[in-house]
Amino acid sequence: MRIDAGDARRRLGGARVAVLATVAATGRPHVVPVTFALAGDLVYTAVDAKPKTTRDLRRLDNIRADPRVSVLADYYDEDWAELWWVRADGEATIVDDRAEMTEPVRLLARRYPQYRRDPPAGPIIAVRVTRWTGWSAT
Amino acid sequence: MRIDAGDARRRLGGARVAVLATVAATGRPHVVPVTFALAGDLVYTAVDAKPKTTRDLRRLDNIRADPRVSVLADYYDEDWAELWWVRADGEATIVDDRAEMTEPVRLLARRYPQYRRDPPAGPIIAVRVTRWTGWSAT
Repeated sequence: MRIDAGDARRRLGGARVAVLATVAATGRPHVVPVTFALAGDLVYTAVDAKPKTTRDLRRLDNIRADPRVSVLADYYDEDWAELWWVRADGEATIVDDRAEMTEPVRLLARRYPQYRRDPPAGPIIAVRVTRWTGWSAT
Repeated sequence: MRIDAGDARRRLGGARVAVLATVAATGRPHVVPVTFALAGDLVYTAVDAKPKTTRDLRRLDNIRADPRVSVLADYYDEDWAELWWVRADGEATIVDDRAEMTEPVRLLARRYPQYRRDPPAGPIIAVRVTRWTGWSAT
């Protein structure tokens, strides 16, 4: 059964983790799990404070080359009648201005105690969602 | 901490659900959750028996246009020291020949009782993994 945009937004807002899919300049898809905060049709995710290898920043290179991204959250259960997923397609921007990062970091810290103890250094990826889709088994 | 190829394969093999990322002909990324079976460096996932809308078959159109795909499984826990993810990048082929589908369907049915009761009609997406990557918090 299709999930409408409002329900999709609500379910994504309740998920603790999602995946962010981007496309590399070579055309290859790339996907990573992300923690995130949702504010209306904006999804915020942070490159966190821990040192990252160059590879882990591929998502940023990809977004600079092509801002089109997809964010997915899914629920799995051995009872397949419980399955659902929601997807938010949109355009990403990279926020590295300290002032502009304040609100996303606040929203992330409100959701995750880890970010209250150790705020993400950034940058922030801000996804403006242009299309909500989803599916539920029941 | 990086996860090596052997450990990545083992962890994916133990996951119950993953996501499959493809790229549309337009260049936009597409991502869906999938159940799957792993046999060495081959990941099999099925288009299942339930009626699907055209939209749900977008993954097949995408693979026909560009076989490069990425499969990700991740583990989330509120204790971030427990987090890990593994990713299998590879090339997908669509298997719709009945004889060639036998072994993938058998492997899927061995993992999921739902597929024993109601075998997937197919087609099967077979991903030959060319690169294993992964990360673990500890």
